[in-house]
Formats: sequence, structure tokens, C-alpha cells
Amino acid sequence: MSEDHIKFMKRAVELAHQGMSSNYGGPFGAVVVKDGKIIAEGHNEVTSSNDPTAHAEVVVIRRACEHLGDFQLTDCVIYTSCEPCPMCLGAIYWARPKAVYFGCNQRDAAAIGFDDQFIYDEIDLDIEKRGIKFIPLGRDEALTVFRKWEEKEDKMEY
Amino acid sequence: MSEDHIKFMKRAVELAHQGMSSNYGGPFGAVVVKDGKIIAEGHNEVTSSNDPTAHAEVVVIRRACEHLGDFQLTDCVIYTSCEPCPMCLGAIYWARPKAVYFGCNQRDAAAIGFDDQFIYDEIDLDIEKRGIKFIPLGRDEALTVFRKWEEKEDKMEY
Repeated sequence: MSEDHIKFMKRAVELAHQGMSSNYGGPFGAVVVKDGKIIAEGHNEVTSSNDPTAHAEVVVIRRACEHLGDFQLTDCVIYTSCEPCPMCLGAIYWARPKAVYFGCNQRDAAAIGFDDQFIYDEIDLDIEKRGIKFIPLGRDEALTVFRKWEEKEDKMEY
Repeated sequence: MSEDHIKFMKRAVELAHQGMSSNYGGPFGAVVVKDGKIIAEGHNEVTSSNDPTAHAEVVVIRRACEHLGDFQLTDCVIYTSCEPCPMCLGAIYWARPKAVYFGCNQRDAAAIGFDDQFIYDEIDLDIEKRGIKFIPLGRDEALTVFRKWEEKEDKMEY
């Protein structure tokens, strides 16, 4: 079983290398495994697809969910060549795989110019202290839609 | 100018309502504005597209970036009907708009069943204490790709 883990991590690292070499984006790759088989592969595509959310983990979560026809990664395992950033961590919690294996860590990424510590720091700040302005506006009107959601009878919860 | 802010927030709330009513997903909408004009609109599509990352903010960030042909939302403003979750917060920091206006807040969302506090809590935990297992594996091999990134001469940094 531990050999399988190593095999899947090697594939994630291989994808990281391929994506970087082909100028798709940064040096990050990932795979999603279910029942011992890879169901999705991907690498960072931020600069080639002009999509700041196209980190390897988000790419493979989207592909694996599409493959499964589900918005949850129940019983799946993600192998990623680098520890997830806060955005990917959030995506992982919404997708709910059972485990995540990661190669390089956050400090390794920071050392080559991918420093997400500022996002971790910002998340913990009160909104009035953040680097990007977050401004509450029109809560009463926005709440009317939440009331309608509560009353909606055919809603699909997630 | 404040009237414009209200107008754009109304549109985000309207999109939240439309998306919910049409069963695209949860009651969340957003728009991206640049130079006083809406350049992207969207709503939550998690359940209809089987994509756990398809929160309104991620959807509009991707669309606005596609529209601009850039992976940054320089000088853009995001209006979202609800305070962003940790995933969307991460996406926002990578996209770097100049401001984010939000309608409902995190507690309002929790009150109708969308509670992202557990993700904020998990982010702050050491990995060995998290609800989803995060396991380091194969760092040495993964680092070889980072070394190649450092040496790469034609890399596009972001």
C-alpha cells in the first residue's frame, strides 16, 4: 500500500514537471485516486489559461468531480506535489476527500517565490485590517434571498 | 459613486436569486466591475455543474480573467451577495482585485446551513490535528522539480 502511495506521488511530481516544462504554469501537479486508480490528473495552469484559481489541486478536484458526476470526492485521495495553499485547502474541505498526500511543503514553495503565508495571515485578520478592502454593503436586501432559500422546497443541499 | 456600489450589489443579489431559483446551486451571486462597468456575472453552480469550487466568487473571477486575458484582476472590484468563504478568500488574494463588497455575512450564511467556520478552524490547526488527513510524502523527489523551476529561464512568474 505504501508503494502505491509513492507511485501516485511520483505521478503528481511528474505532472508538475510536465506542466512547468510546457509552460502551462508553476511547478505543481496533482492526481486524485479512488479505489486504487487515478481518476484525474492535472497541473497548474494559471498563466496559460489566465485563471488564478487553476492551481493543480483545484484542477484535479474539478476533473475528478466531473468524472464521478458528483460534487464530493467521497473515499478519494489527493496526491499533490506541494502542500496546498489556503484557496486549495478550502476547495479540499468542500470536496471532502479522505486524505491528502503532499510532497514539498509551504516553506519549500516560499523559497522559490510562491509564498502563500500572506494569505494565511490575511485570513486571520479582521476585515478592516486586511490588505484588500472588504466592505459590507446592502445586507438587508441580500438577506431576502437567504430567506427564500430557507423556504425553497426543492433545494439541493450541499 | 455610492449609488453605483448599491447598483452593483443589487445585481449580485439578483444573480443569487436567479441561480437559486433555477437550481444552479446555493443562493449566492457576484459580479466583477472594472472602470464602472460589469465585466463578469455569475452565481453558485456547485450542484448543477458537480464542481465544489464553483462558488459565485470563483465563477466570476474566472470569467473576468478570461474577459481581460489576464490572471490578475488589477483595478477591479468584486461585489458578492455574501462574505467569501476561505476558498474564495484565497482565490481573491491570488486574483488581487482592489476591493470586495459583500452583502450577507458569514453568520448569516451559517444560519441557513452554509457554515464555513469549520474551514477557518481547520486552516489554523497543525496538519496532524485536522479532520482531513494531510500527510507529507516524497519531499526530496518533489523538490527536484522546484530546483528545475529555479533554473528555468523562460518561466512566467505570477
